Amino acid sequence: MSQLVNRQFLLAARPLGNVKESDFHYREIPVSELQAGEFLIQTVLLAVGPSMRLWMVNRAASGERLEVGDLMRGGGVGRISASRHPDYAVGEVVLGGFGWQTYAVSNGKDRTPVERVDRRTLPLSTALGALGTAGLTAYFGLLSIGRAKRGERVVVSGAAGGVGSLVGQIAKIQGCEVIGIAGTDEKCRWLVDELGFDGSVNYRSDDLAARLRETCPGGIDVYYDNVGGEILDVALGQLAMGARVVICGATATYNLEGDAPGPANYFNLLYRRARMEGFSVVQFADRHSEARDQLARWVDEGRLVPTEDVLDGFENLPRALMRLYAGQNRGAQLVRV
Amino acid sequence: MSQLVNRQFLLAARPLGNVKESDFHYREIPVSELQAGEFLIQTVLLAVGPSMRLWMVNRAASGERLEVGDLMRGGGVGRISASRHPDYAVGEVVLGGFGWQTYAVSNGKDRTPVERVDRRTLPLSTALGALGTAGLTAYFGLLSIGRAKRGERVVVSGAAGGVGSLVGQIAKIQGCEVIGIAGTDEKCRWLVDELGFDGSVNYRSDDLAARLRETCPGGIDVYYDNVGGEILDVALGQLAMGARVVICGATATYNLEGDAPGPANYFNLLYRRARMEGFSVVQFADRHSEARDQLARWVDEGRLVPTEDVLDGFENLPRALMRLYAGQNRGAQLVRV
Repeated sequence: MSQLVNRQFLLAARPLGNVKESDFHYREIPVSELQAGEFLIQTVLLAVGPSMRLWMVNRAASGERLEVGDLMRGGGVGRISASRHPDYAVGEVVLGGFGWQTYAVSNGKDRTPVERVDRRTLPLSTALGALGTAGLTAYFGLLSIGRAKRGERVVVSGAAGGVGSLVGQIAKIQGCEVIGIAGTDEKCRWLVDELGFDGSVNYRSDDLAARLRETCPGGIDVYYDNVGGEILDVALGQLAMGARVVICGATATYNLEGDAPGPANYFNLLYRRARMEGFSVVQFADRHSEARDQLARWVDEGRLVPTEDVLDGFENLPRALMRLYAGQNRGAQLVRV
Repeated sequence: MSQLVNRQFLLAARPLGNVKESDFHYREIPVSELQAGEFLIQTVLLAVGPSMRLWMVNRAASGERLEVGDLMRGGGVGRISASRHPDYAVGEVVLGGFGWQTYAVSNGKDRTPVERVDRRTLPLSTALGALGTAGLTAYFGLLSIGRAKRGERVVVSGAAGGVGSLVGQIAKIQGCEVIGIAGTDEKCRWLVDELGFDGSVNYRSDDLAARLRETCPGGIDVYYDNVGGEILDVALGQLAMGARVVICGATATYNLEGDAPGPANYFNLLYRRARMEGFSVVQFADRHSEARDQLARWVDEGRLVPTEDVLDGFENLPRALMRLYAGQNRGAQLVRV
C-alpha cells in the first residue's frame, strides 16, 4: 500500500479576480500506512461548488476558510479500497468531505467523517447532486424556508445550476408556477424543454424586470436566490404580498474584490410584508434522510431529473471550478476522478 | 354650525430634500352642514410620523400616496361635537385618520372610519402612542415578527422614537437584554435612566460597530430597525446565529432623493441562518384589541412608560414633522390642536 500515490490539489494562492489554474498547486505524495481503526477511500467523484472561491479568499464562515498550502476542501464519493476498521469493508461506497485528492484516510468519525451511500439503483453521481448537498439545499430552502405552496409563483436565479435546476423541478412537483433565470438562451431552453419550468428569462439579453412583470403579474411569491447582486434587487422590487426570499448564494458577487452593493429594494420587504432568510442544510440534519428518501422517490418516478454535469479526469478539478464560474455547467458540477 | 371654521393643512408641494413649512398650504374653510347619519369630530391630538414624507413625495405603498392639493393624511383622536348618527353621541372620544384639520366629518364607517377610545384611566395621548399605532407596531414587530425571547439580546435603532422607545421597554418586560441606538447623548441617557434600557449607543459620536461588539459579544438576536441605511448594515454584520431582523422603517433614507444604497451585509443572513422581515400592523388586525389590553396593563402597572412627545398648537403641525426629521422628539410626536 505504501506504493500508492495520492494526487492532490492544494491552495497555492488566494485568487485575485477570477479563479485560475495557478491558484492551485498539484502534487503527488505517497499514501500513508493505515493505523488500526482507519480505512482508505479512493475518491470516485468530487463536487465543485460556487462557494469555493469564498473559502479560497478567506471570506467564508469560520470553519470553511482555507490557508495557502491547505488541501482544497470539497465533498465527494469514494470506494473503500483498504480497511483496518471493523465496521467498514473494502468495496463500500461512502460520501464525505474528502478534499481534492485521489485517496483519503478516515476513521469513520472525527477524522474525515463519512456517510454510507446505499442507493444502488441510482447512478453514483446523484449522491453528490439530486440526493446530495445540492438536492438537500434545494429541498429545504424551497419547502422549509421558502414554504412554497401549490399555485404560488416561484422564481429561481442561477436556475441552470446544481441547486437551481432542482429547486425549479421540486417547485413544479409541489404545483407551483416556476420561472427560471439563467445566463444563456440554451440554458433557458433546457429549463423549459427538459426540466419542465413554466418559463425562463435570460438576464443577459432580456429586460429582466419587464419579463418578471410579464410572467408574474401578481408578483413573486417565492424568490430563491443563488446569485445576489442586481438580479436579487430586481426580484425584491417585484415581490407579492407575504413573499418569501430564500438566500442560498450570491455567485454574482463571489468573484468580486471588496463588497458588492447591497439590494436597495430590501425595503420592499416592508411594503410587501415579506421575509428574506438565509439557511444551511446543517440546520435540518435530523431530516436529511427523510428528504433523501423523498428525492430518490421522485427520481425513481421520473418526476425529478438528476442534473449532474460530470467532467472527466482528476486533473480537471481547477478547470471544473473555472467552468462553474463561467456559467458553463448545467446542474451540479462534478469531476470523475 | 355653519359658522364653525375648519383649519386645514394641504400638501402644497412635494418636498425636495428636507420637509419645510412651504410644502404645506394652510387654509380656513367653513365646516359643512351634517347630513343624516353623520357626526362631527373636533380633533384634539394629531400624530405625525416618519413615513409622512414618503406619502408627500409619492413613494409610499399605494393607498398612502398624496397628490398636491390633498388634505395632509394623519391619525388623531377627537371628540364628537355634533351628531346626526344614532350610535355616536356628542362627547364621545374617537380615533381615526382625520387628517391635518380641526374638524372632520364621519359616518362611522366608510367615510373616515373611527374607533372608540374607551380607556378613561390613561391620558388621551396614549391612544396615539403606547396604545396607538406606535404601541401596536412595537408589540407585533418585536413579539410576532422578531419573536424576542427571554435572555436574548435585542438591539433597536431609532430607539428614542415613538416606536423604538416602546420596543425597548417591551423587550425588557420580556426579559431580554436591550441596547438602544439613538443620535444624541441626552437621548441615550434617557433610554437607560428613564426607560430601563441596558445600554445605548450614540451612532453619531460612538464607533457603532465596536460598541455593538462590546454590548452584544454573542451577536444580536433581534435587531429592530427603524432607520435603515448604514446603521442597518452595521447591525446585519453582527447577527447571532438564527437572528431575526425586523424591518419597521428607514428614516435615514426618507429625506433622500433617489435610492439609498442597500445593505451590503444582507448576505450575513446566509452565514447566520437569519431572517429579515417587514410587516404592517394591519396584518394583525384581529389581535389589536388583545395587544391594547396588554399594553394598557403594562402602563397601569408602571412597567411601560408612555412616551408621547406633545407639541401645542394646530399651527405647529408642519414644525412637529420637521422636528421629527431633525430627531428632536422623544417618543411619538403628537400635536395638541
